[in-house]
Amino acid sequence: MYELLKTDPHSRARLGRLITTRGTINTPTFMPVGTQGSVKALDPRELLDMGTQIILGNTYHLNIRPGLDIITAAGDLHKFINWPYPILTDSGGFQVFSLAKIRKVKPHGVEFRSHLDGSLLFLGPKEAMHIQKVLASDIAMVFDECPPHDSPIREMRAAVERTIRWAKECREQPRAHGQMVFGIVQGGSNAAMREECAKALVPMEFDGYAIGGVSVGEPEPEMMKAVEYTEPFLPATKARYAMGLGTPAQMVELVARGVDMFDCVLPTRVARNGTAFTRKGTISIKAGFNKSDFGPIEEGCDCYACKNFTRAYLRHLLNVNEILGLRMLSVHNSHMYLKVMEDIRASLAAGTFAEFRREFIATYVPSRKVLSAREETRGDK
Amino acid sequence: MYELLKTDPHSRARLGRLITTRGTINTPTFMPVGTQGSVKALDPRELLDMGTQIILGNTYHLNIRPGLDIITAAGDLHKFINWPYPILTDSGGFQVFSLAKIRKVKPHGVEFRSHLDGSLLFLGPKEAMHIQKVLASDIAMVFDECPPHDSPIREMRAAVERTIRWAKECREQPRAHGQMVFGIVQGGSNAAMREECAKALVPMEFDGYAIGGVSVGEPEPEMMKAVEYTEPFLPATKARYAMGLGTPAQMVELVARGVDMFDCVLPTRVARNGTAFTRKGTISIKAGFNKSDFGPIEEGCDCYACKNFTRAYLRHLLNVNEILGLRMLSVHNSHMYLKVMEDIRASLAAGTFAEFRREFIATYVPSRKVLSAREETRGDK
Repeated sequence: MYELLKTDPHSRARLGRLITTRGTINTPTFMPVGTQGSVKALDPRELLDMGTQIILGNTYHLNIRPGLDIITAAGDLHKFINWPYPILTDSGGFQVFSLAKIRKVKPHGVEFRSHLDGSLLFLGPKEAMHIQKVLASDIAMVFDECPPHDSPIREMRAAVERTIRWAKECREQPRAHGQMVFGIVQGGSNAAMREECAKALVPMEFDGYAIGGVSVGEPEPEMMKAVEYTEPFLPATKARYAMGLGTPAQMVELVARGVDMFDCVLPTRVARNGTAFTRKGTISIKAGFNKSDFGPIEEGCDCYACKNFTRAYLRHLLNVNEILGLRMLSVHNSHMYLKVMEDIRASLAAGTFAEFRREFIATYVPSRKVLSAREETRGDK
Repeated sequence: MYELLKTDPHSRARLGRLITTRGTINTPTFMPVGTQGSVKALDPRELLDMGTQIILGNTYHLNIRPGLDIITAAGDLHKFINWPYPILTDSGGFQVFSLAKIRKVKPHGVEFRSHLDGSLLFLGPKEAMHIQKVLASDIAMVFDECPPHDSPIREMRAAVERTIRWAKECREQPRAHGQMVFGIVQGGSNAAMREECAKALVPMEFDGYAIGGVSVGEPEPEMMKAVEYTEPFLPATKARYAMGLGTPAQMVELVARGVDMFDCVLPTRVARNGTAFTRKGTISIKAGFNKSDFGPIEEGCDCYACKNFTRAYLRHLLNVNEILGLRMLSVHNSHMYLKVMEDIRASLAAGTFAEFRREFIATYVPSRKVLSAREETRGDK
């Protein structure tokens, strides 16, 4: 279901497409995050306007609220949220290990207390796959264990072993019609464990492979290593997905390392703090220098926010807590992420990705503040 | 600039249109409230989609933030907020008397401390008209004194006298190109004072007349009386505007009493609490009975929210604090208000307003909760 169209001669970058029953996704792709069944502050029309082909939903959150009975009564997640296009659902593994306060890891899953009301819940491979079957996402993810990046080697090894065992269990569960399932490679930034995990998963013949255990607070070089240690062991015939990443510059670098799919809450999260992404890096729209700036957030950008509003107006809206301010920054930032992917695909098609990458990285100034926001990226998903 | 097209034989209702340099407004009309330069949670495209012909802005708020220097640099309020259609600006009189904590009424205005940072400010007829000239609204309002509805008669009289004196002063101030100015009748629910105030203002030949001192905490019958005591003394050749009103049923009743224009924060305010307006009254979308209701907020409604989302989904969004929930309720409620006005106009044109009114009032069940939300209606404007 993944079609590799072209590879870049100067890097591991790939142009391709992922064909699902609900639509084709051109890769490399960015997937806006709709954790609770809504991409924060955006409506489906806005998402389509900016070229969204697939969004994310989350098993852990949707299972708690609204709950499976409501989703079942609606038909599935697509019908419930009125998004008839592809959806990928995260398995909830990450949330169980990051959000749930009290948890007990058992052979077939994790017993934990809801972060909301403290009620006792259980999530394992079987449960996660069942929930995703009910959600009827186009791509389901296996239930994995995602340890902190600084876990002792013994714990990291145990997590990898459990992840492999649970992946196999997930693979055997019934799925929704046309639903793909992706395996998740764990192993931190340990080369041997990444290799071992990937090699154990590949024979299970998943429809795609994710690199997990990134975006968990590790420094950027560790994150890059985690991907570099994993990618060579993944089959070229399947899509690769780097979970919870990243900044625009990181995505360009990860595409160069062979990644096809990304999801990240940064575009909408930093929007709510008044931060906008541009090709030159991030800017605080609330900053004083925008007070009388009657230009758009970014010159040349054709998103709804840039075509209609000035920085001065958006700054005012953010200052007086008008919802339109964070809405428009969410529009711009999400559009920007999708546009970077579109440009990457165009450069791959034209054979100019190397130049694109060089120029992009030379122009984009990373922000420490945004990088630290990324560190909690998957936390509230 | 107001054209009276038709009068209802069974009531004081009027069909007309108000012609401004930036567009024609079909009356009776509802004006969505954009206090700080944004109709809360909505964007201009959504406002146009639902048939908005004019929005409100507020002198008091916009003068504090972003301030006149920014608006001047932008050109005017229309350019600043990207709304090239008609805007009516309130003069700030109401806010000075309701929001500002410490104030000192002087012959030519009010000295007060900003509700935001306590800085000492002064607003009077001259200042209010100057600010509105800079904003370049299509309709400016005079600077009036709006006393609480239960003020002693002596204070009420003093407020009426000041309102008349200040109206004259406002009338003489320079205005923006094509800018109309409306007088405001005060006098509480005292028939003699309403008559006196109206009779003093009419010879000043304002472009329209507002009924102020309503929506200030008075019971509904008092509010209706205030309008009934005023309207007979207003010229038929000018538009009449009931400030800060009201619920859908109240608007229908006020149209029947000769009112042409309305503004109210209720549709967007109650939306943020999860309340939706329907022809049968208000409903709490968060209520348990909507849990598995996969119908729209209101059957037959053609707003974006009703065409795309179910009550069950909107309830979920509100429960998990997703912005899309309050956005969609703001869309529906504002659309509903505008649609009621459209239906009123159609019934006036068809000569069936009496039936429309009877049916509307018989169907619409007023909510005590919403009425009390209205009581603070102009407070945060």
